[in-house]
Formats: sequence, structure tokens, C-alpha cells
Amino acid sequence: MQFTSEQRLDDGVLEREFTLGEVPGTLWTPESAAPAPLILIGHNGGLHRRESRLVARARHSAANGYAVAAIDHPGHGDRPRSATDEQARADLRRAMQAGEPVDEIFESFVGPLVEKAVLEWRTILDALLALPEIGGPVGYSGMTAVGIRLAVAEPRIAVAGFFAGGYVPRAQREEARQVTIPLLFLLQWDDEGNPRQRALDLFDAFGSKEKTLHANLGGHVGTPWFEVEDGGRFYDRHLK
Amino acid sequence: MQFTSEQRLDDGVLEREFTLGEVPGTLWTPESAAPAPLILIGHNGGLHRRESRLVARARHSAANGYAVAAIDHPGHGDRPRSATDEQARADLRRAMQAGEPVDEIFESFVGPLVEKAVLEWRTILDALLALPEIGGPVGYSGMTAVGIRLAVAEPRIAVAGFFAGGYVPRAQREEARQVTIPLLFLLQWDDEGNPRQRALDLFDAFGSKEKTLHANLGGHVGTPWFEVEDGGRFYDRHLK
Repeated sequence: MQFTSEQRLDDGVLEREFTLGEVPGTLWTPESAAPAPLILIGHNGGLHRRESRLVARARHSAANGYAVAAIDHPGHGDRPRSATDEQARADLRRAMQAGEPVDEIFESFVGPLVEKAVLEWRTILDALLALPEIGGPVGYSGMTAVGIRLAVAEPRIAVAGFFAGGYVPRAQREEARQVTIPLLFLLQWDDEGNPRQRALDLFDAFGSKEKTLHANLGGHVGTPWFEVEDGGRFYDRHLK
Repeated sequence: MQFTSEQRLDDGVLEREFTLGEVPGTLWTPESAAPAPLILIGHNGGLHRRESRLVARARHSAANGYAVAAIDHPGHGDRPRSATDEQARADLRRAMQAGEPVDEIFESFVGPLVEKAVLEWRTILDALLALPEIGGPVGYSGMTAVGIRLAVAEPRIAVAGFFAGGYVPRAQREEARQVTIPLLFLLQWDDEGNPRQRALDLFDAFGSKEKTLHANLGGHVGTPWFEVEDGGRFYDRHLK
């Protein structure tokens, strides 16, 4: 893991860019003497890890005593997009706008992404936990499909917050019942891209004994800021 | 409104029993010089206003700066139960245990209760707001059906938290869309007495622009304590 730049922010949080192999990421760490618990932020939709809402969430958690890491998944942010990626995204957009079924396009596009992203996260996690300023335990926050695979594959993930997962690849729908860690599941009630009933069915399927659903009005990007604060208290209950 | 007893609790909260006409109630007020915002707690299921979970919620809110009032609805707690009430309760229990439809029994029992309870709450509210230690604004917390009627009929109710309302009388299902204040709607995912889909449909029906659903695993009385704390922050956002 190589750090390529760093800056100290107003709230004392240290923000560092890093690369590990071909994966670029950002690490936020609090001003703290003791090793900090870690939150991994996964995202999707072609978003960049420096997208403003993601950065605001990360800085909020870091100011609250967590180390927070975000990476660009394959084909996201700073990483190259293959012609196949571009075609799949264009197909997905067109089908959604036309109101056509998107399951197969979604499956072919997101299925392999999830597998790759989780392999990368596990390598990143090894490197992060080797840093003296990071302790454990580890939480995950973000894209549902990656989070399900990671929670099943990676025993170091102790708790997870999932965001609006209506469309999730078949493999992750099937392994949802194997997820047994405490969960906070955020749902946007009018999410244009994630069918509500599927998200409710997915919440129902998780094997966790402690799972909480928070639903708010509005579309995919309309999650109110108070959910970031509620999420913070969820992680505090389990990671501090 | 007559106060019949009072005690100062460890956390400085003053707990007073009162009666107004035939309605018995409890009022908790914080140690505070300024008039406190008010939360009304409504409950059902034959519960007493001094039931331990209700009292714990009330004291938590009072310690956090709110005046909190709970009353026994007609046929609840200290109030006499009519033979008709007793019969309806017995019918309801028997039908639920047998897995038979309960809508009509529920309608005949809870429909009139809601009307009476809301008339009483409005009189109590006049009396409470006349006390110098209580200011405004006013929030409601508790039984969904009474809360819907009260939110529609009483313009002084600024915000409401509803609990697990699957079975709600027809009149309140129909007027749900007239509720436009900010809402926090708590759902117990495995609530034996409140069908999940009906509760989700009711959440969908409310006319409020800001409404949040929190769902947790478990039965009717299994709401985790952290929801009381989340609820506290919901009221703080709107009433402080």
C-alpha cells in the first residue's frame, strides 16, 4: 500500500490517497492515539470515491473516531472502463428509461464486479489492518451486493450498513441468508432504480438476528443527512 | 386538571399523577426554567399508563427536556371496563389465536375507542398547555390509530411517532393521507398482531413529505431500546 498524498483537514482528520496494485483509494483517520476501528465504504453506479456525499459520510465517521477507507471498484472513479463496461452501462440506462426488464443486463454487469471488488477489498483489508493507527473491529457501509459477498466471505467484517439494494445479483440474493452480522438496511421508498418489494424481500432474507430497516421518502440519492447520524450510532453500538 | 400525587425522581424529573374528569394520567416534567415542549404518549392493548416500558420511554424523554403526558384510554389501566369491552377483547383474542379474520371485531372495538380517546386528548391538551412549565410545540408518540385521528383533528400536533399499526380502523386508514406532519413509523417485522403488508401500505398512504420507517426483527413487544433513543433524536429535530 503506497500513500501518494496527504492533507490534514479542519476537524483534525488526516486524509490520504493510496494505491495498492491497480486499486486507488482514500483513507481518512482520526486524530487519536489509540488504534481506530475501521469502516470500509463501498459504492457503485459509476460513482467516484471522491463524490461529495460519500466524502461527507467518510469525514463524519472519521471525526467520530473511525478510520474510513473508500476504494474505486473496477470500472469506477479513476479506474479504466472497458468497452464491455461502457456497453453494459449504456444498455442498462436505455433499458431502465424504456421500462424494460434489466435483470439480465444487471446480472452480467454487476455479478463479475462484485466478485472482483470483494477480492480487492480483502487485500486492502490486510494492508489497512497492518497499519498501527488502525485496530479492529471492522464495519462495512455502502453498496448492498458487494457488502453481502464481503460479509459472507470475510469473517473480519463484524457489522454492515447496506444501501438501497433492490437489484442485487442472483448469487448475492441466494447467499443473503448466510449473512448473520448485525445489519442496518437503508431503503429509499421511491428509488427509481431499486424495486421496493425486492428490497423488502432482501431485508427479510438476511440471516442476521439483529437487522434494522430504515426507509425514507424520495429517490435513490435522496437519503436524508440524519440517516448518516443514525448510521453513526449503529456503528458505535457495535464497533466501539 | 387535578394533581393527586407527585414525586421527584433521581434524574430530577417530576412525576405527577393527575385526573381530568374521569381520565387518569401521569405527567413527567424536566428540571427546567423554560417552558418545555410536550410529548403525548398514547397506548393500547389494555395496557396501563404505568406499564414499565412506557414509563421508561416517558422518563427518558423527560430527562431529555420534554414534558411527557400519558393517559389511560377508555377501558384501559385504572378505568372501568364495560361488559361489552370485555366481550370484544375476549372475541379478539380467541379469533387471533384461531387465525380467524379479526377486522370486524377490531373495527367494532377500536373504532369507538379512537373517537373517545381523541376527544379526551384534546381536552387534556388544553389543560396541559395552560400550565406555565409547558410550552409548545407538541408531539405524539404511540398507538397508530389514535395518532392518525389526533394528527388530522388537532392542528397543535406538530410531529408524531407511530407504533406498529397493521390493524387500524377503516376510518383511520382512509384519513391517513390527510396526515401531513413529519412521521416516524415503527414496525416490528414479526408482529403477531399486526400484518406486515398492511403496516407497509399504511406507511405508504400517509400524506407527509417527511416520513421515516424503522423496522426491527421480533414481535409486538420486542422493539429494541435504541429505537427509543432514535425516536428522541427525531423529536429533537422537530420540537427543539
